[in-house]
Amino acid sequence: MREVVILGVGLHKFERFTDKTLVELGEVAISNALKESGVPFKDIEAAYVGHCYAAMGTGRSVVTQFGETGIPIVNIEVACSSATQALLRGAWEIASGLYDVVLAVGVEKMGTGLISMGGETDRYIVEMGYMVMPASYAMMARRHMHDYGTTFEQLAMCSVKEHKNGALNPYAQYQREMTLEEVMNSRMIADPITLYMCSPTSSGASAAVICAKEKAKKYISKKPITIAGWALSSGTYAREALEFGGMEELAQKAYDRAGIGPQDIDVAQVHDAFSPGEIFIPESLGLIPEGEGGRWIEEEKTEINGVLPINTDGGLVARGHPVGATGIAQVAELVWQLRGEAGPRQVPGKPKVALQHNAGIGGVIVSIYKR
Amino acid sequence: MREVVILGVGLHKFERFTDKTLVELGEVAISNALKESGVPFKDIEAAYVGHCYAAMGTGRSVVTQFGETGIPIVNIEVACSSATQALLRGAWEIASGLYDVVLAVGVEKMGTGLISMGGETDRYIVEMGYMVMPASYAMMARRHMHDYGTTFEQLAMCSVKEHKNGALNPYAQYQREMTLEEVMNSRMIADPITLYMCSPTSSGASAAVICAKEKAKKYISKKPITIAGWALSSGTYAREALEFGGMEELAQKAYDRAGIGPQDIDVAQVHDAFSPGEIFIPESLGLIPEGEGGRWIEEEKTEINGVLPINTDGGLVARGHPVGATGIAQVAELVWQLRGEAGPRQVPGKPKVALQHNAGIGGVIVSIYKR
Repeated sequence: MREVVILGVGLHKFERFTDKTLVELGEVAISNALKESGVPFKDIEAAYVGHCYAAMGTGRSVVTQFGETGIPIVNIEVACSSATQALLRGAWEIASGLYDVVLAVGVEKMGTGLISMGGETDRYIVEMGYMVMPASYAMMARRHMHDYGTTFEQLAMCSVKEHKNGALNPYAQYQREMTLEEVMNSRMIADPITLYMCSPTSSGASAAVICAKEKAKKYISKKPITIAGWALSSGTYAREALEFGGMEELAQKAYDRAGIGPQDIDVAQVHDAFSPGEIFIPESLGLIPEGEGGRWIEEEKTEINGVLPINTDGGLVARGHPVGATGIAQVAELVWQLRGEAGPRQVPGKPKVALQHNAGIGGVIVSIYKR
Repeated sequence: MREVVILGVGLHKFERFTDKTLVELGEVAISNALKESGVPFKDIEAAYVGHCYAAMGTGRSVVTQFGETGIPIVNIEVACSSATQALLRGAWEIASGLYDVVLAVGVEKMGTGLISMGGETDRYIVEMGYMVMPASYAMMARRHMHDYGTTFEQLAMCSVKEHKNGALNPYAQYQREMTLEEVMNSRMIADPITLYMCSPTSSGASAAVICAKEKAKKYISKKPITIAGWALSSGTYAREALEFGGMEELAQKAYDRAGIGPQDIDVAQVHDAFSPGEIFIPESLGLIPEGEGGRWIEEEKTEINGVLPINTDGGLVARGHPVGATGIAQVAELVWQLRGEAGPRQVPGKPKVALQHNAGIGGVIVSIYKR
């Protein structure tokens, strides 16, 4: 298999609502990614486009504004991990020699009232009383509080940290800091999760240009970032509400494929659809010792200048979570961190290895990137 | 690259409307495919699920009813070619060694009034006056009439033949023959395309189990069918209304990869979203000499016992066209033909090589199968 590198990434700012079309959102993200990569659009051999709420054919509309070059343009839809799936389909096809250069995109415009139903709208559990996402995370948070003494204040501190990072991110949906009191006193959604611990309804776009490492030299790009390894599973969404079952094995597969261990990770993105995820997800990935997540947050160990910076861009809660576009936004932040280009959010000490955790219905992903 | 074979296919009967859930439709198709393949569900390593109008997470709901085995379950959405894309993603991943056994599924429940907008709902051309699909095919048909003397009667004969084949297919949405007069006198939709030359609104499901040829021996299955080669492009939908631009090159790529030529094709499926497609698509694939399509229909050369049987299952027009499920229904028919199991639709003379043409927004596919 060939090594695969990310040559460029690009985002359109995440926003709650927008008058822009999906094509306009995608145009900005793709333009930025192409510019960073130095790759002319005509060299793109296939495009994979993550989205969830858009009409069929969206990918074609978004991508062909750059040219009718006849490439396959396939929409990938795996809920919150759609864009990362798009990226990794391309990465595998490059690794295995099918293509040299692929464009991966995520694009989404969300309305209201959609996300709580997840994808199970057609299944008996909807009629039986569906466990919506906030409830699922709330039960995992409650379990963590019971087992390890994690406190409500510590859960709220995750949100405070997320908003602190978001305030440094020009692409974030929420760019203002939030006090502990604001988070704790905001409306209770699913005890212990308050409103400001929830990722918001969002619109936005993300894109990445990836390439076979051996072919990358012909492009004048920013420093290429290697996709070192990844692993996928369908996760245990709504099945084992009280734990992120199977995450340890999944993470281990990704570590093995990348040839590194959790101790090598310098910066991470985890799928904080709700703030408490910042506590129990890193534990399941082996990044934080079991049960220590609450204390790590309190001791500021996951801040930008902490021992393991997590969600330096504000995470899903502050950066925003346009479902189909989120995955490559996570990747973009890691690429910028690994290049040393994250500006006021830059993790000190020149991070070398980064981890992404992105959970979607049908596709939970742990992916490792390195410079 | 490893050879990839289809071990089993399965369908749920296509119907105009259904009270069944997507999960129930998928259950039947997947069960049938697993049964044919001899593969226990626990051996499936990844699942790709084509659909267009269903909620995110549909694939997970449909597939995990067979077991929570933790495999990635990714929805693929490329309009009318979604299911074939799902199949071919799996095929490539098997060919390149990522997996040994993959499940590909297509599932769809369609309402009304959706398909004419295609995927371009977010694009200026909608506001500008969108060229809906019947109009696009109508213009191609008109051009063929002008250039080659193809007649309205010949266009209608395609529909008559489609319904004749559909009447032999227990999975078809329409299982009754139709007279030339009925087709010609049905309501005009987009001159020269009448109502009975249009594929209908449909619901249904399709599935295929594919496997590395070298691993296939361990399963007691029907005769394995080899996926010999394929090619993808984004097609020229709504761009060059007057011709299926780029089809010749695309077909040539598929022929080259399969190491065969158009003269080797014994039976074909072409994407007759509207009956006239049965005339100009086979020409663009090199299966019928340029301009001869109308005469071939009139001379019954594409009937089940003709020189080149096309759409032996009734095609999109009579079998039905549940957008996301259509692709693997085309494949299923070819598999049954190549195995000699197509019953009253069986092409005589033991067909050895079959071609599939499946056109979706963003993904036009020519794929070749052989026994």
